[in-house]
Amino acid sequence: MAEYDLVVRGGTVVTAADITQCDVGVKGERIVALGADLERGANEIDAKDLLVLPGGIDSHTHIDEPRKTGAVMADDFATGTASALAGGTTTTISFSPQQKDGTVGEVLTEVEKRAKKALTDYCFHLTITDPSDRVIAEEVPKLIAAGHRSLKIYLTYDPTHINDDEILRVFACARKHGALVVVHAENHAAIMWQTERLLAAGLTAPKYHAYAKPMIVEREATHRVIALAELVDVPIQIFHVSGAEAAEEVRRARTRGLKVWGETCAQYFVLTAADLDRPGFEGAKFICSPAIRSHEDRAALWDYVADGTLDVVTSDHAPWAFDDPKGKKLKGDDAPFSVVPNGVPGIETRLPILFHEGVTKGRIGLNQFVALAATNSARLFGLYPKKGTIAIGADADIVVWDAGKRVTITNDILHSAMDYTPYEGMEVTGWPMVTVSRGEVVFENGKVLGEPGRGRFLPRGPYDFIKPLGRFPTPFDPVAGKLLEE
Amino acid sequence: MAEYDLVVRGGTVVTAADITQCDVGVKGERIVALGADLERGANEIDAKDLLVLPGGIDSHTHIDEPRKTGAVMADDFATGTASALAGGTTTTISFSPQQKDGTVGEVLTEVEKRAKKALTDYCFHLTITDPSDRVIAEEVPKLIAAGHRSLKIYLTYDPTHINDDEILRVFACARKHGALVVVHAENHAAIMWQTERLLAAGLTAPKYHAYAKPMIVEREATHRVIALAELVDVPIQIFHVSGAEAAEEVRRARTRGLKVWGETCAQYFVLTAADLDRPGFEGAKFICSPAIRSHEDRAALWDYVADGTLDVVTSDHAPWAFDDPKGKKLKGDDAPFSVVPNGVPGIETRLPILFHEGVTKGRIGLNQFVALAATNSARLFGLYPKKGTIAIGADADIVVWDAGKRVTITNDILHSAMDYTPYEGMEVTGWPMVTVSRGEVVFENGKVLGEPGRGRFLPRGPYDFIKPLGRFPTPFDPVAGKLLEE
Amino acid sequence: MAEYDLVVRGGTVVTAADITQCDVGVKGERIVALGADLERGANEIDAKDLLVLPGGIDSHTHIDEPRKTGAVMADDFATGTASALAGGTTTTISFSPQQKDGTVGEVLTEVEKRAKKALTDYCFHLTITDPSDRVIAEEVPKLIAAGHRSLKIYLTYDPTHINDDEILRVFACARKHGALVVVHAENHAAIMWQTERLLAAGLTAPKYHAYAKPMIVEREATHRVIALAELVDVPIQIFHVSGAEAAEEVRRARTRGLKVWGETCAQYFVLTAADLDRPGFEGAKFICSPAIRSHEDRAALWDYVADGTLDVVTSDHAPWAFDDPKGKKLKGDDAPFSVVPNGVPGIETRLPILFHEGVTKGRIGLNQFVALAATNSARLFGLYPKKGTIAIGADADIVVWDAGKRVTITNDILHSAMDYTPYEGMEVTGWPMVTVSRGEVVFENGKVLGEPGRGRFLPRGPYDFIKPLGRFPTPFDPVAGKLLEE
Amino acid sequence: MAEYDLVVRGGTVVTAADITQCDVGVKGERIVALGADLERGANEIDAKDLLVLPGGIDSHTHIDEPRKTGAVMADDFATGTASALAGGTTTTISFSPQQKDGTVGEVLTEVEKRAKKALTDYCFHLTITDPSDRVIAEEVPKLIAAGHRSLKIYLTYDPTHINDDEILRVFACARKHGALVVVHAENHAAIMWQTERLLAAGLTAPKYHAYAKPMIVEREATHRVIALAELVDVPIQIFHVSGAEAAEEVRRARTRGLKVWGETCAQYFVLTAADLDRPGFEGAKFICSPAIRSHEDRAALWDYVADGTLDVVTSDHAPWAFDDPKGKKLKGDDAPFSVVPNGVPGIETRLPILFHEGVTKGRIGLNQFVALAATNSARLFGLYPKKGTIAIGADADIVVWDAGKRVTITNDILHSAMDYTPYEGMEVTGWPMVTVSRGEVVFENGKVLGEPGRGRFLPRGPYDFIKPLGRFPTPFDPVAGKLLEE
Repeated sequence: MAEYDLVVRGGTVVTAADITQCDVGVKGERIVALGADLERGANEIDAKDLLVLPGGIDSHTHIDEPRKTGAVMADDFATGTASALAGGTTTTISFSPQQKDGTVGEVLTEVEKRAKKALTDYCFHLTITDPSDRVIAEEVPKLIAAGHRSLKIYLTYDPTHINDDEILRVFACARKHGALVVVHAENHAAIMWQTERLLAAGLTAPKYHAYAKPMIVEREATHRVIALAELVDVPIQIFHVSGAEAAEEVRRARTRGLKVWGETCAQYFVLTAADLDRPGFEGAKFICSPAIRSHEDRAALWDYVADGTLDVVTSDHAPWAFDDPKGKKLKGDDAPFSVVPNGVPGIETRLPILFHEGVTKGRIGLNQFVALAATNSARLFGLYPKKGTIAIGADADIVVWDAGKRVTITNDILHSAMDYTPYEGMEVTGWPMVTVSRGEVVFENGKVLGEPGRGRFLPRGPYDFIKPLGRFPTPFDPVAGKLLEE
Repeated sequence: MAEYDLVVRGGTVVTAADITQCDVGVKGERIVALGADLERGANEIDAKDLLVLPGGIDSHTHIDEPRKTGAVMADDFATGTASALAGGTTTTISFSPQQKDGTVGEVLTEVEKRAKKALTDYCFHLTITDPSDRVIAEEVPKLIAAGHRSLKIYLTYDPTHINDDEILRVFACARKHGALVVVHAENHAAIMWQTERLLAAGLTAPKYHAYAKPMIVEREATHRVIALAELVDVPIQIFHVSGAEAAEEVRRARTRGLKVWGETCAQYFVLTAADLDRPGFEGAKFICSPAIRSHEDRAALWDYVADGTLDVVTSDHAPWAFDDPKGKKLKGDDAPFSVVPNGVPGIETRLPILFHEGVTKGRIGLNQFVALAATNSARLFGLYPKKGTIAIGADADIVVWDAGKRVTITNDILHSAMDYTPYEGMEVTGWPMVTVSRGEVVFENGKVLGEPGRGRFLPRGPYDFIKPLGRFPTPFDPVAGKLLEE
Repeated sequence: MAEYDLVVRGGTVVTAADITQCDVGVKGERIVALGADLERGANEIDAKDLLVLPGGIDSHTHIDEPRKTGAVMADDFATGTASALAGGTTTTISFSPQQKDGTVGEVLTEVEKRAKKALTDYCFHLTITDPSDRVIAEEVPKLIAAGHRSLKIYLTYDPTHINDDEILRVFACARKHGALVVVHAENHAAIMWQTERLLAAGLTAPKYHAYAKPMIVEREATHRVIALAELVDVPIQIFHVSGAEAAEEVRRARTRGLKVWGETCAQYFVLTAADLDRPGFEGAKFICSPAIRSHEDRAALWDYVADGTLDVVTSDHAPWAFDDPKGKKLKGDDAPFSVVPNGVPGIETRLPILFHEGVTKGRIGLNQFVALAATNSARLFGLYPKKGTIAIGADADIVVWDAGKRVTITNDILHSAMDYTPYEGMEVTGWPMVTVSRGEVVFENGKVLGEPGRGRFLPRGPYDFIKPLGRFPTPFDPVAGKLLEE
Repeated sequence: MAEYDLVVRGGTVVTAADITQCDVGVKGERIVALGADLERGANEIDAKDLLVLPGGIDSHTHIDEPRKTGAVMADDFATGTASALAGGTTTTISFSPQQKDGTVGEVLTEVEKRAKKALTDYCFHLTITDPSDRVIAEEVPKLIAAGHRSLKIYLTYDPTHINDDEILRVFACARKHGALVVVHAENHAAIMWQTERLLAAGLTAPKYHAYAKPMIVEREATHRVIALAELVDVPIQIFHVSGAEAAEEVRRARTRGLKVWGETCAQYFVLTAADLDRPGFEGAKFICSPAIRSHEDRAALWDYVADGTLDVVTSDHAPWAFDDPKGKKLKGDDAPFSVVPNGVPGIETRLPILFHEGVTKGRIGLNQFVALAATNSARLFGLYPKKGTIAIGADADIVVWDAGKRVTITNDILHSAMDYTPYEGMEVTGWPMVTVSRGEVVFENGKVLGEPGRGRFLPRGPYDFIKPLGRFPTPFDPVAGKLLEE
């Protein structure tokens, strides 16, 4: 009987720190050996001249979320996570979006039901839109204890956004019970005010989406939410930092030692505001928030990646089909920008784009690619060391990657249920060949092999990144409700 | 017949730029001559070995404001402005505070009535607490046109504070009709949240006032309101910047070329949080907002004065008597910090403290003293060149100042109706000897000579400082409601 | 007999702080009255609808300097200062350039002789190129005491530049005896190294001058000389700051409270590196150091003017005629950039260019124009209040300026002996109409009226700007040679 | 026959990215297997409850350097590297110091001879003190090609320091031939100038060492050498950054994307200037350069470690015995600070101190400890992946570390030939238990087991970190000597 169920042989294994020529031995669902010349496995993958990477973690995806607006996402968990696997991503974090008049638990129950079709392993950020006493004091603490260690808040969108007082309440709950808060940071009032004036002026085309939410509203909200987090002493991650000014606020926070992390998304590296100005309603394909920005902002992001200010790259996958009355055309094919569902798809293209723009173009090295694509998310969200690296004892989530393969992205070759990709026609160098999830080959030869439902929920225990610093603006800890020992 | 009604003879005349030995000739209410050896005037002031300065302008004073809380200020316009004159200040700007359920006009009418007792010349900032459509679209434009060219907004205090949408509405109104907006910048929700927790922990003594509103809430609101002003392209002044972090936000704004100015107050140069911790209820005498801060913040303010980030120094005079059930003890002599009326008196001590800490201690020169005390306020608020300098054609508002006079401040020697001064026992060098207002000697030999009611209202026309920059985050002007010509 | 020898009547008098409608009365050489309606003077200038400004101070001019290279400046003191008067400048500071093997005194004697032809009042910066013990300990202290209160040092040019040890010696001397040090800050070794490589590559055209001395060499030297000044605690002015990075170093120094000032020159506001690339040898007309820079740098300078980082604007007038074997063509009309005499003329165009680019284009106000053009130089160099303002007792150095006059600059209309102007064909709005120096009309109707030799030397006593701060990196004062009292 | 020569069993393996429970299998000199439950090895180390770390790399050590001053280091390569092994360090980089009048090769030959006694693997930084044409154009290129891929330059010390022109020559050589330049950055002239004045004032005690070289001279040289490196486009590492201001210059460089790295040393985390003030000549034990600094600087270093500005921690081991006429007392036991040999010992205490101050005190995690102690040095100096990590194929350089072991440091327990340690009496938590070098147990039970001479020289080939960026201040590459293709 073979010692190993699977051996990935002869590849170049890359982790966030190391690049090693070696074989990877898998037994059951776990990696059990790294060696120079492992015995033959029951199954073998030939990784000669290929990279062997930890399976990607996409910690920011929208899949089959229940919505009250009538909008319906094109991807359910079967297609969405199949698309993930085909793009080298083996773990997804999506959302359980509390409704304003509902409990967190009821929507979570529904979301858990829907997620039963997943092919990737998965967990959820609990979106809090109505942090009432009951929710904050009773419901969320129990859910955190049950392994949901991240909370999402929105500073914009109606009726989703919460105000400063509510933010503080969520922060206090997160710190008290041990969860990381992830934040969509844009100033809602400013966006609404600007939008009203644009619409009143008859400026309704998709391109005006970027006018309605300029960088300044993102910078403002980023600074504000960081300040509130400082007051409460709670760690946070700023989602989808889109350009220099917002990134600079994250850098300033880190420079003064705060537990503030910055995420950006693949689209901000390649799209620009010009894409919103494509003819007719075509620009609606590129409406996402924060808006895609200028060439200068796009270039500046790499500086912030370089110094670690932005240390996670996700997709913010939002599968609103274009030619679909439940998708981008919810309000018709001539609707003003302000009522077009926000978001772009990208769960499958995330890693190829990051690899191409980052590694192929020489902006980052392989270790940093792995860190941005998998390891840092695993650490920040309490999935490490089970996920996010190639090491003894870790889940055998592995991508065999061809760094030299040139692929022209078209929607046809992707595995999502979407009817468009914003990257249609873009040529990239670097593409996933084989994806392994918990020891099982789930993608190979361009085909997703796993069955819907094979994915598992990932409960998360307490972990270091959610620990407060113990530093306050005054000698008073507002969450503990007492003076500090000085 | 004498050519001059008054000659101030032989002094050292100081303006924001110059220091000149010369006589000042006054005819009627105006300065008509500066000369080496002017003819004798009908009246003469011997200024030998003394400084001759423009009358101070205190652009931030609270006097006899109508309040619904039952609190009553100790100073009416007679005592408050008498105290101003005795301190070398000849022009005051106080407030017309709109009530949440009222119009701006009705309170202005009342305030104008009360101000009829003033001894200084005066005008008002219109405090907007309820920027309804009617107020913004109809009432305020008329009042601006009538000469009220500054609007005040609060980002904290209940029920005074306004939210981001309301701020934007006020900003748009100010830009459209030509007014400067002055801002009390502290994050209300954060203060309330922190206060609740302090009270719940039984931490109610005056010193906890500073815990409830740490610098971080001031920095946050300062950055936010600047961002909103950038969006609308409206000039603003940040009131009472109390320390380094908030000042740094103003500096950052100025470095990127914005029309954002910073004011600080005399108390922030000399008091510290330690004063709030005086025995018993004594600390309540020092409760003002933003809270007085650390030694380090106090010292850092001078750096921001030096580079022009902070270019106006006022009193924020708030005459709540200490031993008074309508003053500091409104809620009793053991009330929690959160219900003690906010503010400290200082209309008379402002210039001596600024002179002592600034000029006597060698931190600033005489020109900068004049600029901080008078000229810059005059310019920012549209009173220049009538007020704020010593020049031909300007109102003959003049202070004859003894730079070497040592005075121990006690409440007894002051002319306000207050029962305490926060500077009791402080020795300063530099004190006003004679004050002249529109050619009339109104303070001399320690006595205020003018009659209540001699002061005049100062209507203000359009002026340069309120002009927008014409710069926007996108090629859209939200106030004009149209795309920019590019 | 008329009370006044001269009255400038009906104009708008502008100082660094004020803008006043009034008459200016002159008696002898001094201003003796400012008034609303002065008596008739023996002489009158009608300034109706015109500005009345303090005579410009050009604190950085090269005129008829003795050189050992064979190069001879086109302007002697007669033509150079006539040109100054025609441009509204009534005071010039030029240089007494010590030779490497000579004393400071011997060249000063020669320079003083040459300056006897001056039409403006004048003084000198003593350039120190060989700070030997004798020079530093004996000669320079005597010259400082005799009224030469500024020393110039070069960090580049052979054989003029001095090394770090020599810089420290000059600084210690300046602090001990009371002088301001002005600095040409560029890294010599880096320029030489880069130049050698450019020449070796055959890249000799004028445009490569800018390649030989990129901003980085200016930024480096600026930071270095500021650090050395911090060590010694001596006030310095950085000459001709040419763009953003060097200006940023000055700003950083000022932000930490140092006595470091920044000067820029008119040419850096209007020329760019593209001018160096004019056909043939034409580019040599634009060779000056630091090199003229990019559009971005040119624009950025205004930000640093706005916040006071750069507070003096001079000409750095260097009159090397173009078609002249003793001027720009010293080494022939095809010489490599590295041997072309450095500098551009501009003593007459300085104020029109600053006015046009600054005031006419709305970047600065009139008060700031006066400050940049005259008042700040007067203060920094110890000439105030005799020079640099319009005030009682000041020298009657006055320019009557037409803010609306449009003039196309051509060399023909200028009064220098130069054969070119770098601004040929540039149209400006704003031009001097009449110049008065010590009460004498010296320029009017386009003609210089004063006689060579009418100018006077301006000895300078000790003054505030040269006082050290009393702050050191350790508790040791290296100039006093003792520990500080702590 | 056992599959493995050595198995490190049951420990927690830590790399720069991962923390894994697993066994490490070694065959010959290499790591060949990582596994959950490896077969028994011929030799076994029980690492239960212990950390298994890559052997430390001390990339900055002075051992038995030939000196012309008469000073002789206490440690030769036998004792120095034995001490390293006992402290968990298995690779050392020391120096081959060119004499001013000598070749680089001649001293290298001597150094290589001395190094034959080494117990660690080793290589050298070639110190260049006399970059003549011959040295730069002929000798050094050959030595680089022979595997000496790092050059050291001094900006201070007589006669060691080189000037700006020489720095540029070394930089051009390094870039052209592929080497990293490491820099001692302090301004020599400023130090000499300050020293002279201190000595003249009779201030000769050890504590004045810190007065002679305040932070400002380090900040200046750091900025300067970075600017010169920008001009040439060559990667550099700044050695021994000692506090905030110098670190800030490194951060600024990194923020604009330069290949500039910062190193600090263990001593700067624990000693302060107060140690220099110990009674009598005792303070001389703490004389090193840059000087140890204030508490504030000491604390600030961690911020710069946190954001990656400082990413390598070394010892700068300089074994000058205290009570030794060839060591600290070279010039007697009352010598002025300026003639005391510079440096402190620390090759054995480096990792315990870094672990204690960093990991035990919660300032850094285990991964960052490994990165700072080994991985980053390996990468920067071209030793990776042979050294610096625990991975298949890497040299079996392993330290088994007890994170909980409390040890009081005294010189008695250390293995160097030194007669003092600056950390006498300091208690630390965390200590190396077993050290393995290339598969051989070389330290165990407090005893060094390897034989002198077992260490091997590590030649280094070209590697990524030495590649230039291809960015220049102008479109000219001065090393290639040609214009860039634009």
